Amino acid sequence: MKLTKETKILIIGLGVMGGSYAKALTDKGYSVKCITRESSDIRYGLEHGMICYGTTEVEPDLVSEAEMVIFALYPGAFIKWIEDYQHLFSKGTVITDVTGVKSEVVYKIQGILRDDVEYIPAHPMAGRERSGVEFADPSVFNGANYIVTPTEKNTLEAIKLCKALGEELGFLRISELTPHAHDEMIAFLSQLTHIIAVTLMNCNDSEDLEKYTGDSFRDLTRIAKINDRMWSELFLMNKTALLTEMDRFIEEFTEFRNYLANGDGKRMREKMRSSSARRTLFDKPVK
Amino acid sequence: MKLTKETKILIIGLGVMGGSYAKALTDKGYSVKCITRESSDIRYGLEHGMICYGTTEVEPDLVSEAEMVIFALYPGAFIKWIEDYQHLFSKGTVITDVTGVKSEVVYKIQGILRDDVEYIPAHPMAGRERSGVEFADPSVFNGANYIVTPTEKNTLEAIKLCKALGEELGFLRISELTPHAHDEMIAFLSQLTHIIAVTLMNCNDSEDLEKYTGDSFRDLTRIAKINDRMWSELFLMNKTALLTEMDRFIEEFTEFRNYLANGDGKRMREKMRSSSARRTLFDKPVK
Repeated sequence: MKLTKETKILIIGLGVMGGSYAKALTDKGYSVKCITRESSDIRYGLEHGMICYGTTEVEPDLVSEAEMVIFALYPGAFIKWIEDYQHLFSKGTVITDVTGVKSEVVYKIQGILRDDVEYIPAHPMAGRERSGVEFADPSVFNGANYIVTPTEKNTLEAIKLCKALGEELGFLRISELTPHAHDEMIAFLSQLTHIIAVTLMNCNDSEDLEKYTGDSFRDLTRIAKINDRMWSELFLMNKTALLTEMDRFIEEFTEFRNYLANGDGKRMREKMRSSSARRTLFDKPVK
Repeated sequence: MKLTKETKILIIGLGVMGGSYAKALTDKGYSVKCITRESSDIRYGLEHGMICYGTTEVEPDLVSEAEMVIFALYPGAFIKWIEDYQHLFSKGTVITDVTGVKSEVVYKIQGILRDDVEYIPAHPMAGRERSGVEFADPSVFNGANYIVTPTEKNTLEAIKLCKALGEELGFLRISELTPHAHDEMIAFLSQLTHIIAVTLMNCNDSEDLEKYTGDSFRDLTRIAKINDRMWSELFLMNKTALLTEMDRFIEEFTEFRNYLANGDGKRMREKMRSSSARRTLFDKPVK
């Protein structure tokens, strides 16, 4: 299967991410349908040109006509949906997802999925700190990373299809990682950063701090506004990798703390020069 | 003394902060002169309409004619300058500064300063992660906080003058704290955040991470590009307060780590709900 404007696309879950996918694809000329829990979200999606059809029921005909199904659910809900409804897929359907952890989800779903349906996992590395379809905004994909995490069960054709989807969505960099490498990377780049932000926000409850804050504190805590249900699932599903990163962070932080306690300006400066040099690598590419 | 367009203003140190002050004041119609180390910075300041005069020498006449002197030096250099040149001030001169730590600087300088010159300390809570006059930009003051940290040695007149300066520079919120309260606040809001960013940047040197990064990691490490000489001085001058904040952070972070290790999703979610609620307080005021 190749991705064309005629490809019948079904999105499961019209939240902030499903909505952003839907809007990006509809804007490109695709016809996008969806199944989601709340009828108010369907109304919103129709009114804002995200979808051409939506329903709160898992309509058998809708699922069986779909050629590409995109899951934008919480990880646990995604697995449950597959268990409950995979019998409705037509042979040859390709499914993909937006799930932020891979190993725990990918092997489980590929393990239970029918042999005549292919699941090609992907993770769009873009998002917003708010949840809900009203915060959907496909412009967050511009300049962002899209990662496909295939396993030995995947076909080259599906990998290509999934990458083509990432391109249509507007991602800048499309790459491939194993589920395991993805999870290690995400534990550091995304999960650890969210826990740091939450910790920073919680570790000092002095009054009136907001009166004096500068931009650095705001930047470091932007993601402290967090969807607690989704992220606790993601953290628990990536526990081993995340604990490793958290322990590395504590070790490195404690080293700096001890340099300070010892009045060792020289070593603190070395750490700062190292971070300054390395941070340059991460500057956002100018489009 | 009141701040008027005729007030003779002298800035010592034309770096990113001194340059931003100079530009903001010149744009408002003040005549700003400066003393700084590099003649190339003076040329830059003259060419970019920041100053009407600059010199690399501590010219006695220039210092004695100044009514308000703004120090934009590193803390140690500021103290040394006062020791070396305070005999040049005229009686009644008011001096202020931009130094990011207060107790260690304020009491030392007020302790050695002539009785007929007044030092009213201030901290503009705005900056850029780059140093040098070519990064000066007074627009960083818009929407930002400006804190005056007077002691019992200061007069009401000088406090008012210093606040008037903050207003002229374009700060949104002008407030007053004791040097001690300022240092506790800054240890948490600014110094801790910089050390977290440096730590995060240093604690994982896997290759190619930048290929996969999203905006959260970029936001949390923006300030990992850091002026190591200035910040090591600031950290060491605020060691006690900063160690307290670092230890609180480690404790809170470790608590979350242990919830994760124990698979305690409920307690992780409580932490995230608490951080989400508290973060709302820190949203930038819309002008």
